[in-house]
Amino acid sequence: MLSCCQSRVLVGYAERRLRCYYKQIIHGNKFSSQSSASLVETKEYGKLLSGSDIAKEILLTLSQEVNKLKVQHSGLTPQLAIVQVGAREDSNVYVKMKLKAAKTIGIIAKHIVLPSSTNEIELLGILSHLNLDPHVHGVIVQMPLDCVNSINSSLITDTVFPNKDVDGLNSRNQGKVAVGDLATGFLPCTPSGCLELVKRSGTQIEGSHTVIIGRSRIVGTPVSELFKWHNATVTTCHSKTKNLDEIVANADILVVAIGQPNLIKGEWVKKGAVVIDCGITSIPGNTIFPVLLVSWLTEIHPSDATRKSGSRLVGDVDFEQARMRASWITPVPGGVGPMTVAMLMKNIVMAAVKATRTLDENSVRRAY
Amino acid sequence: MLSCCQSRVLVGYAERRLRCYYKQIIHGNKFSSQSSASLVETKEYGKLLSGSDIAKEILLTLSQEVNKLKVQHSGLTPQLAIVQVGAREDSNVYVKMKLKAAKTIGIIAKHIVLPSSTNEIELLGILSHLNLDPHVHGVIVQMPLDCVNSINSSLITDTVFPNKDVDGLNSRNQGKVAVGDLATGFLPCTPSGCLELVKRSGTQIEGSHTVIIGRSRIVGTPVSELFKWHNATVTTCHSKTKNLDEIVANADILVVAIGQPNLIKGEWVKKGAVVIDCGITSIPGNTIFPVLLVSWLTEIHPSDATRKSGSRLVGDVDFEQARMRASWITPVPGGVGPMTVAMLMKNIVMAAVKATRTLDENSVRRAY
Repeated sequence: MLSCCQSRVLVGYAERRLRCYYKQIIHGNKFSSQSSASLVETKEYGKLLSGSDIAKEILLTLSQEVNKLKVQHSGLTPQLAIVQVGAREDSNVYVKMKLKAAKTIGIIAKHIVLPSSTNEIELLGILSHLNLDPHVHGVIVQMPLDCVNSINSSLITDTVFPNKDVDGLNSRNQGKVAVGDLATGFLPCTPSGCLELVKRSGTQIEGSHTVIIGRSRIVGTPVSELFKWHNATVTTCHSKTKNLDEIVANADILVVAIGQPNLIKGEWVKKGAVVIDCGITSIPGNTIFPVLLVSWLTEIHPSDATRKSGSRLVGDVDFEQARMRASWITPVPGGVGPMTVAMLMKNIVMAAVKATRTLDENSVRRAY
Repeated sequence: MLSCCQSRVLVGYAERRLRCYYKQIIHGNKFSSQSSASLVETKEYGKLLSGSDIAKEILLTLSQEVNKLKVQHSGLTPQLAIVQVGAREDSNVYVKMKLKAAKTIGIIAKHIVLPSSTNEIELLGILSHLNLDPHVHGVIVQMPLDCVNSINSSLITDTVFPNKDVDGLNSRNQGKVAVGDLATGFLPCTPSGCLELVKRSGTQIEGSHTVIIGRSRIVGTPVSELFKWHNATVTTCHSKTKNLDEIVANADILVVAIGQPNLIKGEWVKKGAVVIDCGITSIPGNTIFPVLLVSWLTEIHPSDATRKSGSRLVGDVDFEQARMRASWITPVPGGVGPMTVAMLMKNIVMAAVKATRTLDENSVRRAY
């Protein structure tokens, strides 16, 4: 039998569907008998760390908080502004996911679409307007910009007021994360999603050796910082790293954010490690299994691309092999993606709560 | 014989004095014959990476740049404001070092001393004034504050305008370093001093395994970031790290910034590693050797404490034992300390240069 799911929360819907599917595979002899046997008999088979299921839980909690806010503050509703320049197909998909999640928890999300002919001054003007609008609690600019003009993206993310920067991309918020001030700013969404996934697996982060593959501004770098400030010993690897396999082999917790399909081989993974795969790449292939897997796991993280016959989404880790060694592993999709959206929603609600505190403080001052 | 000094720049005055001293020790039989023999015969004996000597070189170059600025911009002189609250003895020493270095390179340094009764509002007011003063190019607040009132030090460092934050402590500048934007802000002084030391040793940083012990806001964290963005694979260790000896044993470059005397044992150090010791602690002890060493190496980094009979300054690394295995090693004092001051001076000159560029740009705009 497959290893039993220990936690309903972590291995809910997606895991049960996957288990059924494996049974189907085994009975239907879709794989060779040797392959089926290894799937059935191994004791090392990792538990699925389902971002979809955890994200659902988080969104449910957030919707309750939003209702509470409305009751306590005369109908106040958190409001997000999503600014999109141009119409990249992937950006359209991500924006849709955010709008859907916002609707789920009962917050307002304004989608401001600008033509690809927008210039820097115009974009800065719109952001200034949103910064000053007291009804808007969170502002994000969908990246990358789809623009015919040259726009400095760092200037754009630095223009969003730090107290509305719910993406955590303003360098002031990034600086806070870097130096371990995790309370006063906003944590970037994908990194805090990775952290939440590991926390919910029950794995001890303190004292662990956590290896991060990737050093991007949005994922790798802040993930390294977050785990460091949660007392892990952190090794950060990247394109210039030598002996990657040896370093991975020492990781109690492994977070991969490179964007290279199956870069991390299953046999590199330490037995019992927790594996978080942030990569997501569409590759050609007509295998039935991944397409089915995608349809099961993408309830919150749908991608039209995956549904096209002949293409599938894969992560940076050789999932099937790594699962044989990991204690917990995230699927792709249905792992980090839904968590990113959930953590963004969490930041927006937090921004609205902070704004109400500021209002309350101002009222107290006026009362004196 | 001692291993020969390959570079005059790196192993200048301090190394030559040390070599003479060892000869003196050997001839005078101050150590046991076994100890002397190991000092003389070993091939593993590390070369001294003298921060004092390199800092002198940097200051010389800076003084030339300052002269050039004065000629090109009608007598414009870079100006630093050092704000000190109270009168901690160690702060007095550090401020003196900064004032001396400023004088050496021909820049103006104003020392603003505030009483320990200063409150947060008063300090913020003074910083706002300095921020707006066009003659002041760099502003630093000497930390820690010696103050009877509670003052939020993060608020203080964040109040200094990022373009005058020559200590690199504003969270905007820290955020830039974190995400690899090393060109538009200011690098924090001790970390950039560590990087400069390793660069000048000729050691290849790219692809190396660099281990940083410590994660402080001022040293450990930005050192990790700087080396990562110079393409090292970086492992960051701290008080919760397990198996520290094993991790240190894998370090091609080792930077230690903990403040615990002799925490890092010599036998842990990988053969041929470069060792940068940022720790500096005064400990009791009446050994003649270290006192002499101090008097030779502290030309730029003097500490009155070290000259008192019966006390000496030590780093976080067991220097004598580590030197037997390292290829290059910094002394304490005379290593990172002088480099910190030199990099601060570099930042101030850079701030002045940037200010002149802004002036030039404004002139061009006005001319249109």
